[in-house]
Amino acid sequence: MQVTYRMQVAASQAQARAQRLAVEQSIEMPAEAVRDPRVRAEIIGRVESITPVAGRNDQVDAVLSLADETVGGEAGQLMNMLFGNCSLQDDVELIDLRLPPSLLTALPGPRFGIEGWRAAIGPTGSNAAPRGALTCSALKPQGLPPDGLARLAYLFARAGIDVIKDDHGLADQQTAPFAERVAAVQRAVARANREKADSDSPLAGHRSLYAPSLNGGPARLTAQLRQVRDEGVGAVLACPMILGVPSFVELVRGQAGVPIIAHPALAGASRIAPPVLLGQLFRLFGADATIFPNWGGRFAYSRDCCLAIAQAARGPLGTHAATLPIPAGGMSVARVGEMLDAFGPDTMLLIGGDLLAAGDAMAERAAAFVAQVAAHARHGFDTGAVRGT
Amino acid sequence: MQVTYRMQVAASQAQARAQRLAVEQSIEMPAEAVRDPRVRAEIIGRVESITPVAGRNDQVDAVLSLADETVGGEAGQLMNMLFGNCSLQDDVELIDLRLPPSLLTALPGPRFGIEGWRAAIGPTGSNAAPRGALTCSALKPQGLPPDGLARLAYLFARAGIDVIKDDHGLADQQTAPFAERVAAVQRAVARANREKADSDSPLAGHRSLYAPSLNGGPARLTAQLRQVRDEGVGAVLACPMILGVPSFVELVRGQAGVPIIAHPALAGASRIAPPVLLGQLFRLFGADATIFPNWGGRFAYSRDCCLAIAQAARGPLGTHAATLPIPAGGMSVARVGEMLDAFGPDTMLLIGGDLLAAGDAMAERAAAFVAQVAAHARHGFDTGAVRGT
Repeated sequence: MQVTYRMQVAASQAQARAQRLAVEQSIEMPAEAVRDPRVRAEIIGRVESITPVAGRNDQVDAVLSLADETVGGEAGQLMNMLFGNCSLQDDVELIDLRLPPSLLTALPGPRFGIEGWRAAIGPTGSNAAPRGALTCSALKPQGLPPDGLARLAYLFARAGIDVIKDDHGLADQQTAPFAERVAAVQRAVARANREKADSDSPLAGHRSLYAPSLNGGPARLTAQLRQVRDEGVGAVLACPMILGVPSFVELVRGQAGVPIIAHPALAGASRIAPPVLLGQLFRLFGADATIFPNWGGRFAYSRDCCLAIAQAARGPLGTHAATLPIPAGGMSVARVGEMLDAFGPDTMLLIGGDLLAAGDAMAERAAAFVAQVAAHARHGFDTGAVRGT
Repeated sequence: MQVTYRMQVAASQAQARAQRLAVEQSIEMPAEAVRDPRVRAEIIGRVESITPVAGRNDQVDAVLSLADETVGGEAGQLMNMLFGNCSLQDDVELIDLRLPPSLLTALPGPRFGIEGWRAAIGPTGSNAAPRGALTCSALKPQGLPPDGLARLAYLFARAGIDVIKDDHGLADQQTAPFAERVAAVQRAVARANREKADSDSPLAGHRSLYAPSLNGGPARLTAQLRQVRDEGVGAVLACPMILGVPSFVELVRGQAGVPIIAHPALAGASRIAPPVLLGQLFRLFGADATIFPNWGGRFAYSRDCCLAIAQAARGPLGTHAATLPIPAGGMSVARVGEMLDAFGPDTMLLIGGDLLAAGDAMAERAAAFVAQVAAHARHGFDTGAVRGT
């Protein structure tokens, strides 16, 4: 595999620094002390190229080759080889990653992908118009009991929101334990879906999906996934960096049986470029959708960074299905058109607080969110928008 | 719980920034939109104090109170509430943490602690002198087959190294699959221990412990832990940030039955101060020992930072046992005295590459490492050294 690291180093020191990094991320011992010829030839990382960063005399990009066999086909060990030790070295960022076909195949990728989301939700309305972007909102705040969260979910589902997710802060707290919360919210969403099915409204046939936030160790996760299956819950949300990548792959991707939203909690500070971590890697680990902090909200990711995350999520990647990008983090209904022009139709817009802040007008604002997304699909996207694969 | 965040912000903006952070790390929605009086009173994070950082006009330390009940007593959710979303905000670092007794009790802490390590290893020699610091070395490089790693382990064990750990890069790769590697290495260490028991040497009674590197998802981890128990392996190594904190607590702490070494892979870049993450939190999650990159090696942690990690690992923390600090990362036998003067006797010194680099003189250098640590214990420590609890 070829990994590009941006290093804070003067050009004159770059080759030596890159060599040290190649050793750190492979054999982690003095190279001259390695006697085994196979290890010397095949396992020690190699420096393939060093390129100055334009306009900077204190940064270079080093491309290293690391041996595929060191990964053993396991997601956690991939993280370890990519950034385990050098996460402890402040002068290094991981900015690009090219995996060989063998590793691309070893990792599961999305089970459902963008088309899977569309199939699960059904048509927007009674007409056969092509679906545009998807809509998402969040159940919060923490501290509400299950029936309070269920009321919110019912309201969003009746308004035609496609995916209603738990706030990722909802775990298994006493106020709204997972088992009771999920049962109550799923009942509310199912009721709203039945009512929509029976109606003559433009929402006839529309199924909202509930995505509860999975959390905890393997025993707790396993029980949560069983409940998801038993109660017909339509999606799940999980934080790969909190659960741990190996649990995300084995339990969430392996057992959920419904589309998975990855949440970036604890992932932001890792000095791995967000398009690589939230786009490419989370996709390889099995995320059917990936939430990231869009520009202009509560977070400082740039427009270029956000578009690169969407590209990594939807662009070609072996034979893997595409992951749906979810720009989020303080978005508002007022920005729907601008976001859709930027991200195109293969996107899910997540608006949480802005709907909740409408108070008594929450249902109307949720309906307006849905209507604006639908209208944008009918009237077309700016030519700048990219449709995913 | 009280959490101190260092924020990059001008003093005039600090109060507003801290309020936004308190909302981000609790309800994650506009505070004015929260109607439930209990949530307003008990769940929304509170700004307790804001203190300028001495000598900096662009940094303040904000102490926030976050509600204990939002954690639900689960380690992953603790990480989420402490640093989930704000990991995505570059202007924030987590620098201090005070947990209430209820949360300290909810987290497992070390099962064995420093005294457990000493009991597992037995006396250094036939004399009854108090044990000083412990010694550790590493099996590497990746790419060696099981018998090559076992030969190294035998040599280290015969030399009297207390703990022989897998390189954390050894996972379940084809060259040395976990099951075969652990069986071969454990046999080699057990043989060395039997030979030491039968001898009249100063090492009579000394038991070296092998600590294989656990890895992978819950199914693989569970099988690995079963092998550890079945074959009488004496310790384990695991990377909490790669496995995921919930799996570390539930499977590793819950099922290992032997002392646990936490490795900091993937933990270094998180903008959580190393004493908090590698010291306090890893200890609460159940690490009996914690590896960190010592100053003057391949990593850039300062002396103060390293001593603070040791203090967090060994100082008072509820009723929890102490965690053994393991300074590492490019240490050499030449530095033994200096390190012991700094860290005191309740420390494990890890020297890997410097022993391996001795080539044919590896056994002699390993024995010299052990002898120097033992001599230091007999001749006393500098008064500056701190003995842990």
